[in-house]
Amino acid sequence: MGKDKSDETQDFDSLKPFPDSTRVYIQGSREDVRVPMREIKLSPTQLPNGGTEVNEPFRVYDTSGAWGDPNFHGDCTQGIPPVREKWIRERGDVEVIEGRVARPEDDGYLSALQLEKAMTRDGRNQLKFFDRSQRPVLRGKGKPVTQLHYARQGIITPEMEYVAIRENTKLQHIRENIHPSPNAPRDALNHQHAGESFGACIPQEITPEFVRSEVARGRAIIPANINHPESEPMIIGRNFLVKINTNIGNSLVASSIEEEVEKMRWSVKWGGDTLMDLSTGKHIHQTREWILRNCPVPVGTVPIYQALEKVNGRSEALTWEIFRDTLIEQAEQGVDYFTIHAGVLLRYIPLTARRMTGIVSRGGSIMAKWCLSHHKENFLFTHWDEICEICAAYDVAFSIGDGLRPGSIADANDEAQFGELKTQGGLTERAWAHGVQVMNEGPGHVPMHKIKENMDKQLEWCHEAPFYTLGPLTTDIAPGYDHITSAIGAAMIGWYGTAMLCYVTPKEHLGLPNKDDVRDGVIAYKIAAHVADLAKGHPAAQYRDNALSKARFEFRWEDQFNLSLDPEKARSFHDETLPQSGAKLAHFCSMCGPNFCSMHITDDVRRYAEEKGLTTQEAIERGLQEKSEEFREKGGEVYLAKT
Amino acid sequence: MGKDKSDETQDFDSLKPFPDSTRVYIQGSREDVRVPMREIKLSPTQLPNGGTEVNEPFRVYDTSGAWGDPNFHGDCTQGIPPVREKWIRERGDVEVIEGRVARPEDDGYLSALQLEKAMTRDGRNQLKFFDRSQRPVLRGKGKPVTQLHYARQGIITPEMEYVAIRENTKLQHIRENIHPSPNAPRDALNHQHAGESFGACIPQEITPEFVRSEVARGRAIIPANINHPESEPMIIGRNFLVKINTNIGNSLVASSIEEEVEKMRWSVKWGGDTLMDLSTGKHIHQTREWILRNCPVPVGTVPIYQALEKVNGRSEALTWEIFRDTLIEQAEQGVDYFTIHAGVLLRYIPLTARRMTGIVSRGGSIMAKWCLSHHKENFLFTHWDEICEICAAYDVAFSIGDGLRPGSIADANDEAQFGELKTQGGLTERAWAHGVQVMNEGPGHVPMHKIKENMDKQLEWCHEAPFYTLGPLTTDIAPGYDHITSAIGAAMIGWYGTAMLCYVTPKEHLGLPNKDDVRDGVIAYKIAAHVADLAKGHPAAQYRDNALSKARFEFRWEDQFNLSLDPEKARSFHDETLPQSGAKLAHFCSMCGPNFCSMHITDDVRRYAEEKGLTTQEAIERGLQEKSEEFREKGGEVYLAKT
Repeated sequence: MGKDKSDETQDFDSLKPFPDSTRVYIQGSREDVRVPMREIKLSPTQLPNGGTEVNEPFRVYDTSGAWGDPNFHGDCTQGIPPVREKWIRERGDVEVIEGRVARPEDDGYLSALQLEKAMTRDGRNQLKFFDRSQRPVLRGKGKPVTQLHYARQGIITPEMEYVAIRENTKLQHIRENIHPSPNAPRDALNHQHAGESFGACIPQEITPEFVRSEVARGRAIIPANINHPESEPMIIGRNFLVKINTNIGNSLVASSIEEEVEKMRWSVKWGGDTLMDLSTGKHIHQTREWILRNCPVPVGTVPIYQALEKVNGRSEALTWEIFRDTLIEQAEQGVDYFTIHAGVLLRYIPLTARRMTGIVSRGGSIMAKWCLSHHKENFLFTHWDEICEICAAYDVAFSIGDGLRPGSIADANDEAQFGELKTQGGLTERAWAHGVQVMNEGPGHVPMHKIKENMDKQLEWCHEAPFYTLGPLTTDIAPGYDHITSAIGAAMIGWYGTAMLCYVTPKEHLGLPNKDDVRDGVIAYKIAAHVADLAKGHPAAQYRDNALSKARFEFRWEDQFNLSLDPEKARSFHDETLPQSGAKLAHFCSMCGPNFCSMHITDDVRRYAEEKGLTTQEAIERGLQEKSEEFREKGGEVYLAKT
Repeated sequence: MGKDKSDETQDFDSLKPFPDSTRVYIQGSREDVRVPMREIKLSPTQLPNGGTEVNEPFRVYDTSGAWGDPNFHGDCTQGIPPVREKWIRERGDVEVIEGRVARPEDDGYLSALQLEKAMTRDGRNQLKFFDRSQRPVLRGKGKPVTQLHYARQGIITPEMEYVAIRENTKLQHIRENIHPSPNAPRDALNHQHAGESFGACIPQEITPEFVRSEVARGRAIIPANINHPESEPMIIGRNFLVKINTNIGNSLVASSIEEEVEKMRWSVKWGGDTLMDLSTGKHIHQTREWILRNCPVPVGTVPIYQALEKVNGRSEALTWEIFRDTLIEQAEQGVDYFTIHAGVLLRYIPLTARRMTGIVSRGGSIMAKWCLSHHKENFLFTHWDEICEICAAYDVAFSIGDGLRPGSIADANDEAQFGELKTQGGLTERAWAHGVQVMNEGPGHVPMHKIKENMDKQLEWCHEAPFYTLGPLTTDIAPGYDHITSAIGAAMIGWYGTAMLCYVTPKEHLGLPNKDDVRDGVIAYKIAAHVADLAKGHPAAQYRDNALSKARFEFRWEDQFNLSLDPEKARSFHDETLPQSGAKLAHFCSMCGPNFCSMHITDDVRRYAEEKGLTTQEAIERGLQEKSEEFREKGGEVYLAKT
């Protein structure tokens, strides 16, 4: 801490700071509740009278954790600070345990020697074990150690307070009496939600007590494994900001752990709220360890993927014992939520045989194959209560999988899909009985007119547990652009009430995303989440639109770039047409040129009204009359004079 | 015709054909009604029994006109064939006139000499006049010569028949009894529109009589200036496929007319249904001439832009006479629709003074400034009947502008905007009385929950005339990604009933789009239009999704690429991860690898069921039981054996 960044990390793209931004913290009721935000410096407005007016800095929600703090040591071998550790220990309900000993097969090897060899081969491959000696393994001593359990008892945890401050980010601007447009009337800035609404009920201020009550009734979750104290609390529920999840997977060609960590940092830099590690193949355990120790957002996994590796890819060979062992392995590492496909019941499988695209979920396919091989009910379903007990002991939340989600428009909302959804509802209730936090996964490929039915049924059948959807993609015909086909569906279902959106990159269906694809996917989903927040009426949402539009209208180009979701791209697009630095001070833009600017004209109208001190419409109209006379005195028919 | 393409045109990107595609024509009731389509060749399905099954070629709507016909001469100095010329002449209601003589000021010059000089300077600048001697100027002899006028009289024009064939494209596949998935049950392929619907009422087959009736009641338009016989008929109305418009503008740095024409070809290659020429500055007239003579889709303009150039950019100096002259100039050239901001009334202007972003439409600003300068009512409004008479004499359709559209989320659905929309409704009725075809332009920046109100009010106040919207953009905070922020709004408003969507490129608000930006914008809007068609229940829409999903599920990679909106990008994304040509025959993809494919697993399930000749669910379940026994005979606990 306080040390300069090490040389090798400074080169990573993810560590390049956002322009004109600084890290600030808002402190809560105790010293160690410090919520990070990114504060964007704005330039002053040039007033018509030649003076200037200050625009207060603008604060935005920041998911980058310690990686966005210039005072952080930046050394991933040490990991990021365990911000929640003290809170977890204080509650007095956990104990340090020795924990499960990592085995070579956790990383896909037959022996320790083979694993050791693989991790050092070539000298080039810098894979090594993270030294976890400073981060002991914890487990609940008996009762659930979940945020749900505390919430039900009326306890407001530091996590809940943290979340409440975080969700209010933009409301700081109200309290400080900063309003985005001094020219616009104040009432335009207050949140006015006229239009269609779908049951989200968001208070004007998010209080810690509101957070507690939403968690207590299962309508929101705070994924917070006691073994992932590095994670900064965040909340997933339809009465909060819509969140987005990004996925990463290990890569056989990555040359170092630093590159694996970089993928994670890249995703949180752009605004990923949670991260799913979908690694398969070798080094799953070690890669996950590095990610968890360095990741400031909750991490989710699909444990069946690793279990399958342990049986050499043969789904028939999966057993409850292997799966259980994998759950404990991952819970002790600190995974914050598990996707578990316990709703893929034997009786639903034949319903998929005549589909256009059968079963397209990996986890769903694995379980379907297991069920077929054994002609037995899904062991995840039959062992559900035991799974719940494990999760309750570490506060691992469920993301109950939708293994039978539609993989094409033709299969949307069919019997197999809705059968599983109903089963998810039953599993949700059973998990709640164990004190485990739950969300439900949803589709998939769904045309627009069938999206709302998904949300309505999920709310009803799953008792308002948070919905977490993949898109949905609204058509099948645009591979290469599925971040767009799915952002459409994601925005809509977010508006209808989905709490978290799983991102889709342009490479969906085609290949593995590179860095640009990840950025494109994250930004498309930040857009979907934000437009859903606007439409749901989240009181903190519209301030950023207003601040950016004011900057746009006042030709504060740098501010317009800096307030955008991707300042770098906005600036580079502007510079393609007008690269001169002077152009960023210019009161015009490349689209219309200096003599043909509609914003200029409005400015004339407004300025005139203001100069005269006019405020009512009647007075403005009188002013226009004056201006018209003035024009006639000075002007004439230019065209006729010219030719 | 029949001649090879000239050397200089072969290099243009727009002329690179789509892979495995051929141009076909479907003939109507007369020989010269020949509707072009692009036919995509598909590879056979590999059946489980080792045999193959043919997949019939797939036909898609084709907007590229003669430029997509390999037999076309490809010489833009000759222009494309005037496919509608005979139909126009046959009706006997038009006469050849001398027409208005082009003046130097039409291109922004003071004298003919200055213009001539400018067009030849450097030798590098190849601007020259299009030789229109073979394309005489026509005008109606008295009665309206509009498709609306004919439709009201019960006449089914060749244009209407052409449109009916074109809209049914994919239905050809039904008639020929080709269904997309031989494995899937047939009923899954029939259009089943369960879910939310918003009043679109599309018949199972689009007949010429249905086209006529929709045009007659003003609910659809066929933009078809009698002086643009090169345009292939297309229809804009909410009971037809949703259309998209793209914009181009002249460029001072373009080195030749061929490059201006190339912009147009690029847009129609990717699927632009109409094209607006928004040129400003010099050479407006000549550039437009080249575009019109080579453009197979309707061309729209905003005539006030050129009129403003004629008064040297001073909006105060605009007069009705100059505007009228410009309308005639453009109508005689062949412009198919005019955006006219006649709804910007004097009394609405003060309502914009306190907005977040005032007036953001160029045309709206020009008229607002004019109104303020003169303190008079908008001359486009006061001269509306005369404007209608001009349009009726050439069949120029109206696109009544929305000069007061909101430029930010804060300004959406305000009094100024809705005041103008109501006025648009009155203007619509007056235009109809003159026999002129009409559509109405709409916003802009609108959050999701306020979109539907726009559509509802437009339907009510504008009497179901087609709505034509710019996006809307659903947030202000993502400059650089506004093709996405607006595709979300466009898809939704298309579903609600908007007939045409004006595209937005990623450069919106930032700069001038390059070729990649245009492609990104067009594809984003083809997606928005298609997902709206799916949701509206257009019976021809889902066939392409089904065909592509079938190809995807059967690992027909080339077919998946070729059926997509952008085969080139889909292929290149796939090749980034798996470049080997063998990978495109592989029954797996890069995401999961060869041993971990969910589609494989479903295929196993399905194949097993088929081998046993089982069709009912009961029988499938019996089969699963058998398979389970078989597995148990062969398998065991692999994991335990391994360690």
